[in-house]
Amino acid sequence: MQSTMMKDPLSLNHLLERAGKLFGGNEIVSRLPDKTLRRHSYGEYYRRTRALASALQALGLKKGDRVATLCWNHHAHLECYFGIPAAGGVMHTLNLRLAPREIGWIAGDAQDRFLVIDDVLLPLYRQFADLHRFEKVIVFPFSGAPVPAEFANYEALLEAADPEAFQYAPHDEDDPVAMCYTSGTTGRPKGVVYSHRSTVLHTLVASLADFWGLRGTDVVLPVTPMFHANSWGMPYGAVMMGVKLVFPGPHLHPDDLLDLIQQEPPTLSLGVPTIWMSLIQAFDAAQAADSPNHGRWKLPRGMRSLVGGAAVPEALIRAFDRHGIWILQGWGMTETSPVCTISYPRAELRGATADERYRRAATAGVPVPLVDLRVRGDGASDQPWDGKSVGEIQVRGPFITGSYYGIAAEAEKFTPDGWLRTGDVASVDPLGFVKISDRTKDLIKSGGEWISSVDLENAIMGHAAVAEAAVIAIPDEKWSERPLACVVLKPGRSAAAGEFDAHLLQHGFAKWQLPERYEFIDAVPRTSTGKFWKLKLRERFPK
Amino acid sequence: MQSTMMKDPLSLNHLLERAGKLFGGNEIVSRLPDKTLRRHSYGEYYRRTRALASALQALGLKKGDRVATLCWNHHAHLECYFGIPAAGGVMHTLNLRLAPREIGWIAGDAQDRFLVIDDVLLPLYRQFADLHRFEKVIVFPFSGAPVPAEFANYEALLEAADPEAFQYAPHDEDDPVAMCYTSGTTGRPKGVVYSHRSTVLHTLVASLADFWGLRGTDVVLPVTPMFHANSWGMPYGAVMMGVKLVFPGPHLHPDDLLDLIQQEPPTLSLGVPTIWMSLIQAFDAAQAADSPNHGRWKLPRGMRSLVGGAAVPEALIRAFDRHGIWILQGWGMTETSPVCTISYPRAELRGATADERYRRAATAGVPVPLVDLRVRGDGASDQPWDGKSVGEIQVRGPFITGSYYGIAAEAEKFTPDGWLRTGDVASVDPLGFVKISDRTKDLIKSGGEWISSVDLENAIMGHAAVAEAAVIAIPDEKWSERPLACVVLKPGRSAAAGEFDAHLLQHGFAKWQLPERYEFIDAVPRTSTGKFWKLKLRERFPK
Repeated sequence: MQSTMMKDPLSLNHLLERAGKLFGGNEIVSRLPDKTLRRHSYGEYYRRTRALASALQALGLKKGDRVATLCWNHHAHLECYFGIPAAGGVMHTLNLRLAPREIGWIAGDAQDRFLVIDDVLLPLYRQFADLHRFEKVIVFPFSGAPVPAEFANYEALLEAADPEAFQYAPHDEDDPVAMCYTSGTTGRPKGVVYSHRSTVLHTLVASLADFWGLRGTDVVLPVTPMFHANSWGMPYGAVMMGVKLVFPGPHLHPDDLLDLIQQEPPTLSLGVPTIWMSLIQAFDAAQAADSPNHGRWKLPRGMRSLVGGAAVPEALIRAFDRHGIWILQGWGMTETSPVCTISYPRAELRGATADERYRRAATAGVPVPLVDLRVRGDGASDQPWDGKSVGEIQVRGPFITGSYYGIAAEAEKFTPDGWLRTGDVASVDPLGFVKISDRTKDLIKSGGEWISSVDLENAIMGHAAVAEAAVIAIPDEKWSERPLACVVLKPGRSAAAGEFDAHLLQHGFAKWQLPERYEFIDAVPRTSTGKFWKLKLRERFPK
Repeated sequence: MQSTMMKDPLSLNHLLERAGKLFGGNEIVSRLPDKTLRRHSYGEYYRRTRALASALQALGLKKGDRVATLCWNHHAHLECYFGIPAAGGVMHTLNLRLAPREIGWIAGDAQDRFLVIDDVLLPLYRQFADLHRFEKVIVFPFSGAPVPAEFANYEALLEAADPEAFQYAPHDEDDPVAMCYTSGTTGRPKGVVYSHRSTVLHTLVASLADFWGLRGTDVVLPVTPMFHANSWGMPYGAVMMGVKLVFPGPHLHPDDLLDLIQQEPPTLSLGVPTIWMSLIQAFDAAQAADSPNHGRWKLPRGMRSLVGGAAVPEALIRAFDRHGIWILQGWGMTETSPVCTISYPRAELRGATADERYRRAATAGVPVPLVDLRVRGDGASDQPWDGKSVGEIQVRGPFITGSYYGIAAEAEKFTPDGWLRTGDVASVDPLGFVKISDRTKDLIKSGGEWISSVDLENAIMGHAAVAEAAVIAIPDEKWSERPLACVVLKPGRSAAAGEFDAHLLQHGFAKWQLPERYEFIDAVPRTSTGKFWKLKLRERFPK
């Protein structure tokens, strides 16, 4: 017996058409380099996106051709998200925080044919232009300055195109729509290629009520860059449900974000922990009567905030909750579209204490539908979900990558039975909450026992004097490895190492787990995606 | 270039495994024939469902074999929803409200091999047993009475099975999981066969925050029968998100439903308008100081209520809103899984008056993602979404049927370009709200102009003295057809035809649209699915 259902393919084009028909009156707001706001309706967005697709076809774009973007978060980048696949192309988001030589290498590896770039990023382009030759460089006049004559002008291309006459490139649901390179903390960057199918499925799952809970009445502030794991997929969800978007553009300083939040109060925001840490610090500092920013900002009570990309300290969750803002922590990777787990309030925790709820909120959360997740220790069987047994997280599902672009086999990244090896180490509790203890390479092996650097960091960051803390392993003759804590104090605060030891013992750490010593540093070095860059600390403190 | 994503198929089995792992502690409550409640945890549900699947395989079930169900809404029926496909079978829900000879014909047409049946429905089974021979009849001892020896005992089968050793039947995502016959108001009933793919996609879409908004903390009361368009797909969504379910069993009298609502207050309920109409009438009647039910019930403020299957009168939406219960109207068919449109509060209506919001809530709503919807008049092009131009609704998408089981071609149900012809006539307004004016065959053609019987019915039902109203066409020499209104008055109320005319004129109807006459009747006859059965009225009032 066979199903009688239609075989219509999943398609981003359907979501774009839907937005054009249903959400014509809703708004997409972009902050420009001069900090003024530009507003488009979804109706204009729809026409501009089809005009872009039409222009790309007129430029000779063929099915499967890569079109790179080097852009901040704004409406034109969102146009690329749907317009490039509509024309049959593959959007390749270049990470503007990488070193120019890395960007050039990645563009060459992906064989990018065209580039869409913000005018304010042309100085960066000129630093890698000799490493890869794009057939056409299309400049989006983000700042409003005239576009140099050697480049194509994004707005001029759109104006010359005819969105009414545009025809979508025919496609299957497995055809590619976008690609993104892993940050490459281990080995060289590797390309992940998303399809219509994987993107639509990820969008549906992540948008569900318990996770993003995306509603048409939402106002979403995506601080997460659109060049980093597709801004976690939010651009696709926003267009599917027609939410109002507020794009921050290039200004991500906490004062600028707080100003934008005043102007266009969001109901949902997303970003890495670093951003929210500096935001709450700036906000708290402004409460002092003698602060020059006194009275400048209010936080939007009731806002949900999606935070991921690195572990979210419980102290940060508590700090925002005091202002009526609930942080939903998620976990995933470029390889996983990216949402694999989200920590949301569960029915089973209805009677739980506040401490209990914070504790769960500070985990990576529970696996979302369509993601199979298992934890593997040294053996060949799954670790039990007992909240204690640790192992590597392995995942599979229709929006998880099964290979890398142009790489025949990457055996170490996949298990023989086809699961993605994430390299993250975790335990899972009986309710399914995943607690990530470390990256496999960041665990500290002391006297035959593992110490979690993440646990130590989070606990130290719960100390009132501490702004940030990163823990690394240093070699030790007797114990093999011992933890070293690198601590950034809050402005004007001081503390002695002994205080931290007492604090950690109070929070349940055993004596042997305490850091060997504490180093006070000015700032924790970060990767291009805002994560702690422990490699740099290890270089600085080799022992 | 090719996508690097894994090719994992969509699967109901994934949702079942997920529920077993994550929601072990959440509850599934079933009301038994004696009105007591039985409680299962999702952990027990998971084991019982796998035991059922294992038992079916032991009975010799082969891939694609149909297993019929003839059951009320309860946990064992939910076990069939996942257990039958887990074993590789196709669940075929038989509609217990049909005439016995129709049930027998449908079981024969589907070639059902096994039957799972509630013991309390055995008298019904015996009326059609000679029309189709099931290889095995499995009786669920719903009432607790001993199962007659000639049948298999559902509980005994489960006890004998080994859920631990069970292996899912391998499948593709297009493989069938369930089938349901259309109610057959035109022509003979026709089978629609759902797949893993169509069911998972429908579940994801319908569960989104603006539609069902399904959260793990929800308590869901599905009054919509599980034998009617899969209870609108709610059983699948409930298991995906681990919501607490409260199944009403066979007791659907308003007093019984109100009692159940007291015992296990839901946050979300679903049913046809008839049910909610009688519920609010029973509730309102109980407010009288001399009512025997005075003080017996409270309505759960904040509950959302999904209502569909027939047009929802605006008066009903207003009546529930007075008690803090918001009705979300949906529209769909057995052929469409079924959710095609849902009326939810849109961002664009934020500043609108209450009247404006009620008016939209009383439409069928806007198309959900993955459903393409167009309105076709006589010509070959789409009607504009101007709120005025009417035509037939045609739909397509991955959870819409493209054919019927065992029928080579059904040309009149599909357009040459592959869209499903729904037979419903509607206009769509610029925000995408679909307003169904009628079934094609229920429109009244008067003097070359169409009159909507649904509009007239809804307006008449807004009159304080009216419980229900159905409008049909009667032949007219001069005008070709004229409307006749059949009116059911509320107990103890009276009204003259002139009052209704005045009421209709007040509500914007033109004089020529007023009913030719009013007939006062005791009750509107209904089909097995609770819809107005206008055929019966036409027979009673031929002119």
